[in-house]
Amino acid sequence: MRSIDINCDMGEGFGNYRTVDDKALLPWITSANLACGFHAGDPSVMKEAVQLCVAAGVRIGAHPGLPDLQGFGRRQMSISAREAYDMTVYQIGALYGFVVAEGVLLQHVKPHGALYHMATHNKDVAEAIVNAVYKVNPDLYIMAPAYSEMFHAAERLGLRIAKEAFADRAYQEDGRLVPRDYPGAVIHDTEQAAEQAVRIIQTETVTTLNGLSLQIEADTLCIHGDHDRALPILRAIRIRLDQEGIQVASLS
Amino acid sequence: MRSIDINCDMGEGFGNYRTVDDKALLPWITSANLACGFHAGDPSVMKEAVQLCVAAGVRIGAHPGLPDLQGFGRRQMSISAREAYDMTVYQIGALYGFVVAEGVLLQHVKPHGALYHMATHNKDVAEAIVNAVYKVNPDLYIMAPAYSEMFHAAERLGLRIAKEAFADRAYQEDGRLVPRDYPGAVIHDTEQAAEQAVRIIQTETVTTLNGLSLQIEADTLCIHGDHDRALPILRAIRIRLDQEGIQVASLS
Amino acid sequence: MRSIDINCDMGEGFGNYRTVDDKALLPWITSANLACGFHAGDPSVMKEAVQLCVAAGVRIGAHPGLPDLQGFGRRQMSISAREAYDMTVYQIGALYGFVVAEGVLLQHVKPHGALYHMATHNKDVAEAIVNAVYKVNPDLYIMAPAYSEMFHAAERLGLRIAKEAFADRAYQEDGRLVPRDYPGAVIHDTEQAAEQAVRIIQTETVTTLNGLSLQIEADTLCIHGDHDRALPILRAIRIRLDQEGIQVASLS
Amino acid sequence: MRSIDINCDMGEGFGNYRTVDDKALLPWITSANLACGFHAGDPSVMKEAVQLCVAAGVRIGAHPGLPDLQGFGRRQMSISAREAYDMTVYQIGALYGFVVAEGVLLQHVKPHGALYHMATHNKDVAEAIVNAVYKVNPDLYIMAPAYSEMFHAAERLGLRIAKEAFADRAYQEDGRLVPRDYPGAVIHDTEQAAEQAVRIIQTETVTTLNGLSLQIEADTLCIHGDHDRALPILRAIRIRLDQEGIQVASLS
Repeated sequence: MRSIDINCDMGEGFGNYRTVDDKALLPWITSANLACGFHAGDPSVMKEAVQLCVAAGVRIGAHPGLPDLQGFGRRQMSISAREAYDMTVYQIGALYGFVVAEGVLLQHVKPHGALYHMATHNKDVAEAIVNAVYKVNPDLYIMAPAYSEMFHAAERLGLRIAKEAFADRAYQEDGRLVPRDYPGAVIHDTEQAAEQAVRIIQTETVTTLNGLSLQIEADTLCIHGDHDRALPILRAIRIRLDQEGIQVASLS
Repeated sequence: MRSIDINCDMGEGFGNYRTVDDKALLPWITSANLACGFHAGDPSVMKEAVQLCVAAGVRIGAHPGLPDLQGFGRRQMSISAREAYDMTVYQIGALYGFVVAEGVLLQHVKPHGALYHMATHNKDVAEAIVNAVYKVNPDLYIMAPAYSEMFHAAERLGLRIAKEAFADRAYQEDGRLVPRDYPGAVIHDTEQAAEQAVRIIQTETVTTLNGLSLQIEADTLCIHGDHDRALPILRAIRIRLDQEGIQVASLS
Repeated sequence: MRSIDINCDMGEGFGNYRTVDDKALLPWITSANLACGFHAGDPSVMKEAVQLCVAAGVRIGAHPGLPDLQGFGRRQMSISAREAYDMTVYQIGALYGFVVAEGVLLQHVKPHGALYHMATHNKDVAEAIVNAVYKVNPDLYIMAPAYSEMFHAAERLGLRIAKEAFADRAYQEDGRLVPRDYPGAVIHDTEQAAEQAVRIIQTETVTTLNGLSLQIEADTLCIHGDHDRALPILRAIRIRLDQEGIQVASLS
Repeated sequence: MRSIDINCDMGEGFGNYRTVDDKALLPWITSANLACGFHAGDPSVMKEAVQLCVAAGVRIGAHPGLPDLQGFGRRQMSISAREAYDMTVYQIGALYGFVVAEGVLLQHVKPHGALYHMATHNKDVAEAIVNAVYKVNPDLYIMAPAYSEMFHAAERLGLRIAKEAFADRAYQEDGRLVPRDYPGAVIHDTEQAAEQAVRIIQTETVTTLNGLSLQIEADTLCIHGDHDRALPILRAIRIRLDQEGIQVASLS
């Protein structure tokens, strides 16, 4: 029986600010990527997010980002590989504090926003991030798109990899996501997202925006929680996966 | 043979900014309290500080502070006990990341500045901080003045305590330090500081600013690194302790 | 014909975060207090808020707060009077940049949250803030409760004062607001708030939570925008003021 | 009689942190570029810097930077032109507060670090920054290298320009500075820097690192204060300019 993890970004509030209703999404996912205070999240937001995940039985991962709260970690910064290592160690550690305080284990790490993109395309940054994960805890998974620099760096190091695919985003022919500001980049239709999810799992292919078939492997599906279609899409995917006899389970 | 730990605050730079020359002080101490990014310290500063400590054989502790870089964590903030818990867990965790990445163990926690003062006098904040330390790692020491709220809270919880005394600061009759802005509060004379250190260790008493004798117990002596007399004072203390046959060793 | 100003806090988002829908509230008020980047607001949020105010014909004031985004400027900090002066000058200036860039004038200053409370009760901080306003622009109004330290400091200096009263908050007998966490502190009933507004303007008195009559003068009514009753309360007040023939107009 | 302005970055401390001794440099310059709180500077640092400049008779300019205290504003960030406008308006305004409070006028604006580089090479960012300056105060000067995008944008808009050249940095053939990490990029020899200064002013040419002669115009010479040769270089330049009968005076 095929099995897939479903991950979602969470704990992305700060101070009095909140974005999405994490509680509504938690029943539909198996892994949560929690912001660690740099692009979003503060100690109180993080503790609450960890406690919600523990109560919901959802596995927890660190979601380190660039030090840019105003830009939500989505603005590229010319950081060095050394700085990427340092900020990744810091943020994994900070989240680890809450995870161990609640008596659970950290499952994975997934860089956020511009840091994720740098780790996908920049070999030095990818190696720095993967090395940071390994040094803090060699049992952690890194979530990475197959064939990304981050994927290769993790393979070379022997770090556990959860190959990530996207159900609610359109793909280019080169395997990358269509940029967010491009028409058709974000899939809002619930059935289309569910169809893409099932297709990726069953056939290890996805249809690109241009209509081509692209090979793709996935251990985890990413669903973006920060648009109002997130919940209906998650529900539709879970129903379709259930119909197809595909199990939804965390990585470990 | 009596033994004492000597601790000093370190890693208090940020970005391009540096304060004291940590490298010069490290040979003279056995425990370092490293800033964790809130009142000072950033990921790169923290990593470098951890590596310096490891190279010098100095044990490492977390030095969590209030989220106030501009005020260097010295301005009181009306945080709740819950917020004190949250920010302590976060900062211990963040430093833990670097400590474990370098293959060593975290030894202790010592709150910084205004957070230390709140933990000394406010029972709720003291319990929150002590509980945070315990939840992250019950084997850690908390550095606390004997008879402070933090000391009592640690005793009740069963957390390891390193009773802290000060060689370079004058005491009031009630066991508290004379506030920094008061004449005679900071001891600049090296022999006087060394004398106070030896007296505390050998007689478990200290002479207050008013000339009274105050009972005091100490497992660790704090030396403030942020004034230009720090190095001569440390040297003088080490020489006197050596003469008196008092061993200087970390807590564990 | 009696006239009153109605002020509301606005521009309290940060980065991707938003709190209330400023656009919905603007048609009902005459003065807006805009966050200046310390407790909320960033340059982009501020520019947008200024442009919305200009489009709506609402007068603009600076709403300086403590440097505590996480605590939304509501946590007391032990800042010195000098620091209060410095952070007030900075924040007024920063907002002034956007105001002058849009071709309008700054009307007033009203401290936010914990800084407002300190300015109400602490003479040194009150004088520092009032002095900061005067030094940047002696034509600005300061919004202050009558009989507060800030009011007296402004009187001594000769700074223009807009005496502020609250339609949606209950009063204590000593003229202060009932603390937020106290039952009955916040008035959610639209008619009750409208009644309190009219009573303050027409009789210069308000009924305290204990049922006593308290003398009160008001040039401006503050309505809190950060609860879901804000819009209905504003509508109810405007309708009642209209019925009573009371004009709603900005300070200048 | 030829006249030249000499500018230097100042007020680059934060909280307890300081970098260079501004007081030592002030007697040798005529214009100071003051950090505005994003890459360095906080309200108290800024006020002190403004007061020092006023006391020394040195003209004041805003030195806006990217919101990156940790990276000292030297790490490129992919900000939009709109964000460049917003952060420039904010920072000029913030400094304006202190300048007007001390009873003087703001003279100029000079972007810092990575923002300066973006304004030199990126037309959209250059226009946004120049427009921000103009909107806040059309009488301000912008300091810009001749032939940079910022220079052209200011020309198109009709903003006053102070053409900037560097006495302590080597030039490439294309008119740009040799990058800092390149051998020979920074001129440490006092006589060589003084020679370059005189040559630029008298001949409107500079010798590049490759030994070629490059045409260059200058209204202001930038001296970097953040290395230990700053003071001897400034002294040497002032002595040489005096010998050559070149007057040193601010822009206005």
